[in-house]
Amino acid sequence: MAASPLLNQLMTALRCLPGVGPKSAQRMTLHLLERDRNGAQRLVEALQTALDRIGHCRRCRDLSETDLCALCANPRRDRSLLCVIETPADVLAVEQSTGFQGLYFVLMGHLSPLDGIGPAELGLEALETRLDEGEIREIILATNPTVEGEATAYYIAELAHERGIRATRIAHGVPLGGELESVDGGTLAHAFAGRRDWRG
Amino acid sequence: MAASPLLNQLMTALRCLPGVGPKSAQRMTLHLLERDRNGAQRLVEALQTALDRIGHCRRCRDLSETDLCALCANPRRDRSLLCVIETPADVLAVEQSTGFQGLYFVLMGHLSPLDGIGPAELGLEALETRLDEGEIREIILATNPTVEGEATAYYIAELAHERGIRATRIAHGVPLGGELESVDGGTLAHAFAGRRDWRG
Ligand SMILES: [Zn+2]
Ligand SMILES: [Zn+2]
Repeated sequence: MAASPLLNQLMTALRCLPGVGPKSAQRMTLHLLERDRNGAQRLVEALQTALDRIGHCRRCRDLSETDLCALCANPRRDRSLLCVIETPADVLAVEQSTGFQGLYFVLMGHLSPLDGIGPAELGLEALETRLDEGEIREIILATNPTVEGEATAYYIAELAHERGIRATRIAHGVPLGGELESVDGGTLAHAFAGRRDWRG
Repeated sequence: MAASPLLNQLMTALRCLPGVGPKSAQRMTLHLLERDRNGAQRLVEALQTALDRIGHCRRCRDLSETDLCALCANPRRDRSLLCVIETPADVLAVEQSTGFQGLYFVLMGHLSPLDGIGPAELGLEALETRLDEGEIREIILATNPTVEGEATAYYIAELAHERGIRATRIAHGVPLGGELESVDGGTLAHAFAGRRDWRG
């Protein structure tokens, strides 16, 4: 294959995918054009449809192809529990691995003043309106255990406390099945500071 | 993110890419929709354009967006040397790392009777016509050093010899059982320089 403008353009475009460098982009280009044109056509259509039709749920801000997402629209979810979380990927992880039956509020990030991300960018006015509705008894702060995630959790806990709503933080520590020696120092320090009485 | 039909469809479609499993497909989906919609739109367009406009060169069978590819159309390439090679990726590897100045004939595979791939599927009639034109002095057999690649080289060497044309095989600096496109450039250049006459 001689370098050709259209092939180069496709290889460059594929590099917008996370984890795809020049070598993978080349392999993908040749695979799509030589061996799987049907798959490539389906990818074009699925991606264009997703771009056209997937926006954000007006209630929880999660990615959704409907005005109200499937979780928010589900009458069997517990409306008194609200989990505040950073990203759609986090929602997916919680849904796949915990028995959580409440609803979510997706910040789409965390407070980061230097990047111009304040309460407005995270939709916190909408969150306050929701807290004012009186349905929520407990807000579960599931932001990441980073400096920004902690600051964001702290800020939102204040909004809950001002309204007399309980705010809880998910536990952080050594992962189950993990080895102490392979856990980073910050996590280990956190696990020690957050130790509980052992009740056999 | 709740499982949604359009999101699932996009995750499935992304799995047509080589090396992309369910976890990568999910990460790519979220990245494209949350963080890089412009990149995703460019990818849609580059891929659709490539599918619509990239076909095969009528002379060498390589991937090309024009009827005659840039290499075949280049008047400065040496028309007396013809490199017979398995795939467009192999052409790219040779172009990037050797000083080869001749032309190519891309088989788009190798002889594989059990898979129904015979001389016709590899375009060998067109190759014979080309050998009959009398311009070619040497045919360089650069098929992969696999059982099928060797058998294909042997078959094509016969076509050359029948016409009194010299057939050479690139040197075995390429590891046996390896694929040309994954060999480092130095090895490949060495293999070209050390090519030998083919004695069938
Ligand atoms: Zn929602
Ligand atoms: Zn060509």
